[in-house]
Amino acid sequence: MRVNRSARVADVQGLAIAGPVVRRDRLSARRANLGAVLRLLRDEGPRARTRIADDTGLPRTTVVHLVAELLDGGLVAEGEPERDGALGRPALTVGIDGADVHGIGVEVNVDYLGLLALNLRGEVALERRTPFDVPRADPKATLDETARLVAAALRAVRARGGRTVGVTLATPGAVDVAAGVVGYAANIGWRGVRALARLREGLAGELPELFLQDRPPEPGMYPELYPEPDLYLENDAKLGALAEYVPASARGVRDLVYVTGQTGVGVGIIAGGRLVRGAAGHAGEIGHLPLVPSDQRCCCGRRDCWETTVGRGALLRYAADPADAVHDPSVDPAYRLAELRRRARAADARTLDALDRIAANLGPGLALLADVLNPRLMVLGGHFAYFGRYLTDKVAAAVGERVIAPRGGGCEIVPSGLGFAAAARGGALLALDAVYRDPIRAMAGRGV
Amino acid sequence: MRVNRSARVADVQGLAIAGPVVRRDRLSARRANLGAVLRLLRDEGPRARTRIADDTGLPRTTVVHLVAELLDGGLVAEGEPERDGALGRPALTVGIDGADVHGIGVEVNVDYLGLLALNLRGEVALERRTPFDVPRADPKATLDETARLVAAALRAVRARGGRTVGVTLATPGAVDVAAGVVGYAANIGWRGVRALARLREGLAGELPELFLQDRPPEPGMYPELYPEPDLYLENDAKLGALAEYVPASARGVRDLVYVTGQTGVGVGIIAGGRLVRGAAGHAGEIGHLPLVPSDQRCCCGRRDCWETTVGRGALLRYAADPADAVHDPSVDPAYRLAELRRRARAADARTLDALDRIAANLGPGLALLADVLNPRLMVLGGHFAYFGRYLTDKVAAAVGERVIAPRGGGCEIVPSGLGFAAAARGGALLALDAVYRDPIRAMAGRGV
Repeated sequence: MRVNRSARVADVQGLAIAGPVVRRDRLSARRANLGAVLRLLRDEGPRARTRIADDTGLPRTTVVHLVAELLDGGLVAEGEPERDGALGRPALTVGIDGADVHGIGVEVNVDYLGLLALNLRGEVALERRTPFDVPRADPKATLDETARLVAAALRAVRARGGRTVGVTLATPGAVDVAAGVVGYAANIGWRGVRALARLREGLAGELPELFLQDRPPEPGMYPELYPEPDLYLENDAKLGALAEYVPASARGVRDLVYVTGQTGVGVGIIAGGRLVRGAAGHAGEIGHLPLVPSDQRCCCGRRDCWETTVGRGALLRYAADPADAVHDPSVDPAYRLAELRRRARAADARTLDALDRIAANLGPGLALLADVLNPRLMVLGGHFAYFGRYLTDKVAAAVGERVIAPRGGGCEIVPSGLGFAAAARGGALLALDAVYRDPIRAMAGRGV
Repeated sequence: MRVNRSARVADVQGLAIAGPVVRRDRLSARRANLGAVLRLLRDEGPRARTRIADDTGLPRTTVVHLVAELLDGGLVAEGEPERDGALGRPALTVGIDGADVHGIGVEVNVDYLGLLALNLRGEVALERRTPFDVPRADPKATLDETARLVAAALRAVRARGGRTVGVTLATPGAVDVAAGVVGYAANIGWRGVRALARLREGLAGELPELFLQDRPPEPGMYPELYPEPDLYLENDAKLGALAEYVPASARGVRDLVYVTGQTGVGVGIIAGGRLVRGAAGHAGEIGHLPLVPSDQRCCCGRRDCWETTVGRGALLRYAADPADAVHDPSVDPAYRLAELRRRARAADARTLDALDRIAANLGPGLALLADVLNPRLMVLGGHFAYFGRYLTDKVAAAVGERVIAPRGGGCEIVPSGLGFAAAARGGALLALDAVYRDPIRAMAGRGV
């Protein structure tokens, strides 16, 4: 008998296959069932206990116990009455609540640190942005400052009676999410920085012991991808893509590309409803492709890198002479971009020309992304979103012209509504996701 | 109470989440359990019934019944004894067999029709290749000829006592897999061709009625992606990528790009173990990106399309004057490529120069794929594989130089070992995959 290990195509096609009827111990069954109820309420909306039982196939008495536990833990709340047929008392619906349960995303970028805390309802509990010269500071100093920002946020959440279930650090460049190491981030000059370990040290006074341990993940519960239960690391553009995917998926989008203009260019890819990381986390690193001729030397040492023609430096260079105040490095870039937008609104010819050049330079990069990935939606973030109304239509026309598939393969191009907080928001969502994977941990006071 | 439908991040990260304990009726439970046993044996290798029970969590008596049914249906066979501890009789292992169960892939390409039949063991039962001028014939004539080829194969499989569970049609271009329609395939001049419907008509005499019906898929069993249970349509390069992914995944590769040189260039992408199709099936259509200056007008009407610098036309043009016999369109291109390979082996300077140019022109395209997708493995197919020893090292050097991630992001570049039959093989694997999704159908004489 020869055994064929060859025909494992199903997984590749992304088929939903009914799994084996696996034996479960009592705790893992409870955890799985609590998670199933929570995810049902998240994905399908609030409903009465009887409908939860019908939709999950769980016995009604079990559902009553599970919902009581979730109510107790503050993850769900009772809402409107739902009339279940004509007879009897109307039953109360149950839906996701979690106003007290928070996830934090904190972003280290070239010239700022940004933080955003979301609660489980999706409400912004806290937002911070601090100018910070990351390439000049050493990584340790940057991460210590980041830890101070996170610590203040943890205290602020606690002060209003809330708790935080996880923190995600967002950085540019290629990151090793499993090891918590930033492998290579040209724009901030980091190489092989053990970022999560340092952040954890910086937070030592703020976190209870359990939160600090490098515990091995519980088998089958935490994926290999994020072995550390409470602190996560991910690339900023990938997190921006996650943040944009949340509203997009609600209207059926499964293929999305997020392109963010910062000092460089970041790209985050969702294909078939899955984040594309690549074999070593480098997927989307197209800022250094030679797409448009440029006379600028890139931070990577080459010429003609795409990001030298669409990044913030290019925009400022096209828009103003070197003596212009918008080039003043001592001023927060956010203010300088605001000044440029003021000029664009005043129909300043030089500024509008600069934006036209940015749109023209964006074309080839977005067209190649559309050819390779055929996304349904391309979201422009960072300063591309900031100048969205001046860029989007021109960029869409350029892409439609270049892409070989009819009508750009059906790709829509829109500016992001999340501003410069997209990465931090994605980080907060990633941290909150632990609640759906393991509601027991989120309820058991594991937060801080 | 406000409900948050926002935090559905888990799915995006590709986390394996324990599903709800869903009620099942008896038939669907049996189907799910048969599938679970089959997939276990496929993915983890042969094992005794007691180990199957341990690995799936199914009761031993259930496993005994399930295995008996699979043995009966010819999908598994008993093999070597496995000693289960020191005491007692050694138990016989059970493993995938299915020597009689076949899947067929049939490829329509610019100048040939190709067919490959695989059995469930992964053995090639049949392989055919016919020169055919597809762009000159109309789609109906091509599909009728394709149907004759498939019909002959169905008869040949039947003649040796085998049965066929499904047929996949592979074509170039963008295909609508759900509708069975080839939307746009520039190289063969197809646009909006209802290929599966036509193939089904052409096979009318060969297939039992059940095989022919446009049955609605059984809910939850057949994915929306392939609503027709037995005839499938997919893009050739995507099927080539599936065929290459099978051996690659066995050594842990999850991110793979397949680049095939034909008349044009096809690209198939596997990211994180999933086939990337894009929103409308156009993913990987990069043959028309302007990557290398070219003086040739492309079939799409533009200049500088990448495929005019690396496709078969470019190779022949670089390698030989117009009067040379390798340009004779009346000769099967396979022979003409064989002649070029003979010259390369004889160290003919013009031929080797031509291959160097192809390698140089491949560089920018493969580098951008590596930047966007960060694959662990890039497999060169079609004529790139045919001349693999002359291309691979040079291409790998060019990619390593261009890609921004250190060491090309860890990407290895190898020639395909599957030759021009890669797409048909991927199609046969896709057809066979139905066996793992629903063993009952495969055993119930639904094959022909």
